[in-house]
Amino acid sequence: MRQKIILDCDPGHDDAIALLLAARHPALELLAVTTVAGNQSVEKTSTNALKVCSLARVLDVPVARGMQRPLLRPARFASDIHGESGLDGPEMPVPAFPLAAQHAVDLLIELLLQSNGDIVLIPTGPLTNIAAAIRREPAIVPKIQAISLMGGAISVGNVTASAEFNIWADPEAAAIVFACGRPITMVPLEVTHQALATEDIMQRLRAMQRPVPTFVADLLHYFADSYRQVFGFSAPPLHDPCAVAAVIEPGIILTREMHVAIETQGEWTVGRTVCDIYGKTGLPANACVGYALQVERFWDLLLDTLQCYA
Amino acid sequence: MRQKIILDCDPGHDDAIALLLAARHPALELLAVTTVAGNQSVEKTSTNALKVCSLARVLDVPVARGMQRPLLRPARFASDIHGESGLDGPEMPVPAFPLAAQHAVDLLIELLLQSNGDIVLIPTGPLTNIAAAIRREPAIVPKIQAISLMGGAISVGNVTASAEFNIWADPEAAAIVFACGRPITMVPLEVTHQALATEDIMQRLRAMQRPVPTFVADLLHYFADSYRQVFGFSAPPLHDPCAVAAVIEPGIILTREMHVAIETQGEWTVGRTVCDIYGKTGLPANACVGYALQVERFWDLLLDTLQCYA
Amino acid sequence: MRQKIILDCDPGHDDAIALLLAARHPALELLAVTTVAGNQSVEKTSTNALKVCSLARVLDVPVARGMQRPLLRPARFASDIHGESGLDGPEMPVPAFPLAAQHAVDLLIELLLQSNGDIVLIPTGPLTNIAAAIRREPAIVPKIQAISLMGGAISVGNVTASAEFNIWADPEAAAIVFACGRPITMVPLEVTHQALATEDIMQRLRAMQRPVPTFVADLLHYFADSYRQVFGFSAPPLHDPCAVAAVIEPGIILTREMHVAIETQGEWTVGRTVCDIYGKTGLPANACVGYALQVERFWDLLLDTLQCYA
Amino acid sequence: MRQKIILDCDPGHDDAIALLLAARHPALELLAVTTVAGNQSVEKTSTNALKVCSLARVLDVPVARGMQRPLLRPARFASDIHGESGLDGPEMPVPAFPLAAQHAVDLLIELLLQSNGDIVLIPTGPLTNIAAAIRREPAIVPKIQAISLMGGAISVGNVTASAEFNIWADPEAAAIVFACGRPITMVPLEVTHQALATEDIMQRLRAMQRPVPTFVADLLHYFADSYRQVFGFSAPPLHDPCAVAAVIEPGIILTREMHVAIETQGEWTVGRTVCDIYGKTGLPANACVGYALQVERFWDLLLDTLQCYA
Repeated sequence: MRQKIILDCDPGHDDAIALLLAARHPALELLAVTTVAGNQSVEKTSTNALKVCSLARVLDVPVARGMQRPLLRPARFASDIHGESGLDGPEMPVPAFPLAAQHAVDLLIELLLQSNGDIVLIPTGPLTNIAAAIRREPAIVPKIQAISLMGGAISVGNVTASAEFNIWADPEAAAIVFACGRPITMVPLEVTHQALATEDIMQRLRAMQRPVPTFVADLLHYFADSYRQVFGFSAPPLHDPCAVAAVIEPGIILTREMHVAIETQGEWTVGRTVCDIYGKTGLPANACVGYALQVERFWDLLLDTLQCYA
Repeated sequence: MRQKIILDCDPGHDDAIALLLAARHPALELLAVTTVAGNQSVEKTSTNALKVCSLARVLDVPVARGMQRPLLRPARFASDIHGESGLDGPEMPVPAFPLAAQHAVDLLIELLLQSNGDIVLIPTGPLTNIAAAIRREPAIVPKIQAISLMGGAISVGNVTASAEFNIWADPEAAAIVFACGRPITMVPLEVTHQALATEDIMQRLRAMQRPVPTFVADLLHYFADSYRQVFGFSAPPLHDPCAVAAVIEPGIILTREMHVAIETQGEWTVGRTVCDIYGKTGLPANACVGYALQVERFWDLLLDTLQCYA
Repeated sequence: MRQKIILDCDPGHDDAIALLLAARHPALELLAVTTVAGNQSVEKTSTNALKVCSLARVLDVPVARGMQRPLLRPARFASDIHGESGLDGPEMPVPAFPLAAQHAVDLLIELLLQSNGDIVLIPTGPLTNIAAAIRREPAIVPKIQAISLMGGAISVGNVTASAEFNIWADPEAAAIVFACGRPITMVPLEVTHQALATEDIMQRLRAMQRPVPTFVADLLHYFADSYRQVFGFSAPPLHDPCAVAAVIEPGIILTREMHVAIETQGEWTVGRTVCDIYGKTGLPANACVGYALQVERFWDLLLDTLQCYA
Repeated sequence: MRQKIILDCDPGHDDAIALLLAARHPALELLAVTTVAGNQSVEKTSTNALKVCSLARVLDVPVARGMQRPLLRPARFASDIHGESGLDGPEMPVPAFPLAAQHAVDLLIELLLQSNGDIVLIPTGPLTNIAAAIRREPAIVPKIQAISLMGGAISVGNVTASAEFNIWADPEAAAIVFACGRPITMVPLEVTHQALATEDIMQRLRAMQRPVPTFVADLLHYFADSYRQVFGFSAPPLHDPCAVAAVIEPGIILTREMHVAIETQGEWTVGRTVCDIYGKTGLPANACVGYALQVERFWDLLLDTLQCYA
């Protein structure tokens, strides 16, 4: 039986690839794609999700637009990394189908309330939608099987010295999600910075000579430029697919249970995922924090899935 | 010509060894030892400094007692690591000489004002004395040649998930020091956790069969127990001597210039040294942050010096 | 033409009286009552709203239940003032009609989007519903004609030394509302503490010898005890009806325009309405802050309305 | 027997008048004047203190210069109120005597340690000197008979909407002082705004036709302009002399005991004196907070003293 999932995302180059992985991997049943403001405005991330689905002929999954901005703070986008469209680089088709009528938060609540508690949420953007749904309808919380999220950092952030973008963009939402009491797998930068799309990976994608892998290679080409310019990376890290992979094959990411607090008050540290590695807080663990990736296994899993696309 | 230094410390097992290194290395001229509340109360750390000097026959260096507590916060000691005396483990002699009449802050101000700007400060405890001196007499700032301090962490702290003890114990003092504008070498946990006193080191010390190296081995024996119990380390890290070694032989610690901010406001992150590795703040560098230690060179330097003691 | 209003409340003794004023005053058209956690849980405040409407034969106004807890913080109730039911004191009828099917936030959004921008919101509890609606559907903001809210204090709070209960209970929601850009009348404690239900008022109510005024007198009897015990007041202040009165007859409350910020970060001051009386911030005014009440006019207006009830 | 006092000040127009009151009132024995950065730089406030003493022929009281800037924050002066010199307006003499050799903090410590616990401190500027002395030598605390300070506000501040200047200028110092455990009389804006130097007062001063009262009238002339322009006051409030008057004749200011916390963390409320009027914190009282002034008695006391000057 396939694992039911909802992908909550803000495509975004790596979100787009996460979506492609989530939609076709045989171990997963993608119930819905919900979008959120993050890498770009929710209008853009929603359109991007539709375009990616259209290009990949994923036409049976509802795409619902969600929150326009963080719970409290002003929206701040990652144009330096993802460009003005949020998905700069490859040419994109016109969407082949419309957005769902429902708001993402309503769809999340409906699907969870109707479920048997067998849905895993995979957020790969700011946690605004998930937090808004939890506050709007607390009855969904026991219905969440688990959350596998891309976000945070054990050591050093990427948007500030302290914080990773997804958590920093809506730290209050992150605080709500990390306090919800359901099993959380946190996939931080320490893991995703191991998923580097090297030249070898690019060649494997291009060698497939099929539209979806070629599209992914085009995305990564743009993404590589961003990471070279902003961070001096030699190859771009494929953050978001890691959070999907962690659901498909849990052992692919090595994790440790610990308490993770979200800093919302600091002068320099807002959005930091404070990972209590040494158990200094005495607080019970609320997350399994990834610290290493089975790199080859990850790429095989991802590339095998991309090859399945017509 | 020897480099003039003042060691500002809170012995403390590793402080004691830093003191022994500072007092006898031929490249250094130790003008004074100033003490501060940190690993234990300033009464205890002062007595410990006197005892270490007495045991090692370092009788010509003034030891001045400093601030009893942090600038703002209540004093919090590291009894779990250093015991009730601050230097538990080996038997210690009665001090052979008294404390200096002057308060540490006054001595710091006097020595700096009288100097030609050729004194390096080596703080290995909370930065309360240095900060209090800077605020009391701002004219000392241009007289500080440089500061080589043990403190902070790039990634994960040791007293909280975010903060290293010395900075956490008096974050406001640290903020004052890091903003002072003088050259700062910050020796963080990432460096000092490479200076592990392994069994091999212990044997080299014991093989010397002389009082001071034996005393150091006894200190490390206790310290090893602390680190095993509290952090699960297989060998104890020799934090403070690294900051002294960095003055003796700058290349011994690899550093990178960057901006370091001290978090004083967070709910979970107080005392964090926010190291702007990727230059995200746009602020000018205020510290050279260590990230690696020439481990063998460090131990040779330390053990050679300890062997010089009668 | 009557002014369209929505009453967003957490009855609560004074909320109940505000509801009675809002439902029958001829200048007002009460479109809906929305409830929120505040003086008690949202279950209790919703039931209380239904009971008050039932008792007063206000059967044509939808009562919709809203947010169960503040946006970020845990719910904290005012049992010391309003008792365990939120409306302790008088005997209450069983509700004569059910809650609306819609969630309060959805109802707020629907009514506002359908409107011609001619609805005034009157929040008399924590601002959670209004803030959640604004974040969920930003398009409602230009549709809000104005907001007349009971909350805040210019000088001294009632739940802490700094903060009034409604703002303190959900300061983040208050910050969202005060930043929304629509006209806000803030009715603070300085005004409502002038609306003291003295013995004379009680006698006027009892002298009417009708069920609703008698019910109000019974409410005030309990409320008077609370205020005597907790604050040492000789008569209880009728906070929430003031915010309704300000819509009915704007001149009844003297106001001054100024910038009001909501403190969400302080150690001692969370929930404070920082009223920039002297214009020190240089920020544009975002609220008309009440500072005095036409006391006799207020009581006449309220008692005249209560007398209209069958 | 006269009450021994030390005046810790930052003249400043009203500080200057406080100094004149403190130096000649027969109930007081002024042991020292210590100066601090506040209304202007410590260089200027020190020179101003010397000039005021010189003009008034108060030549036997040591004037010691203190802290150049607040404990943590950058120095911020009140040039809009007191002008560039800190004492703009009247012509001032060249100082007739030099500053004391000792630093103000050292003098405070020395005088207190030598005393029988019979010295009242009267701070009328930021509390930097007092806090620095307390941290530097905690043994002075039990030697402080009491502290009568001008600072804070129960309701609305004057430098921000939340804070009064003296506390706001160094809130961390204020927090240290308010936590010291000795009897504190806090004279807030609510009191000092009752000490308005009206036209009648001005005439009484000028009618004395003597140098010191005329100097005071000249000071007040300038001060009146400042308060008219910045706050729209019709007459200037004589803040600092109130704190001196409270020592001379305690009943002159009506006070209530309560807990006062100093906010150091808020976004909008830094420097607020959080006065727990209703006892909501449950914390023990640490201050007698003034709320009313015997206005006529105050002016008689002040003017009678000024008349004593040759």
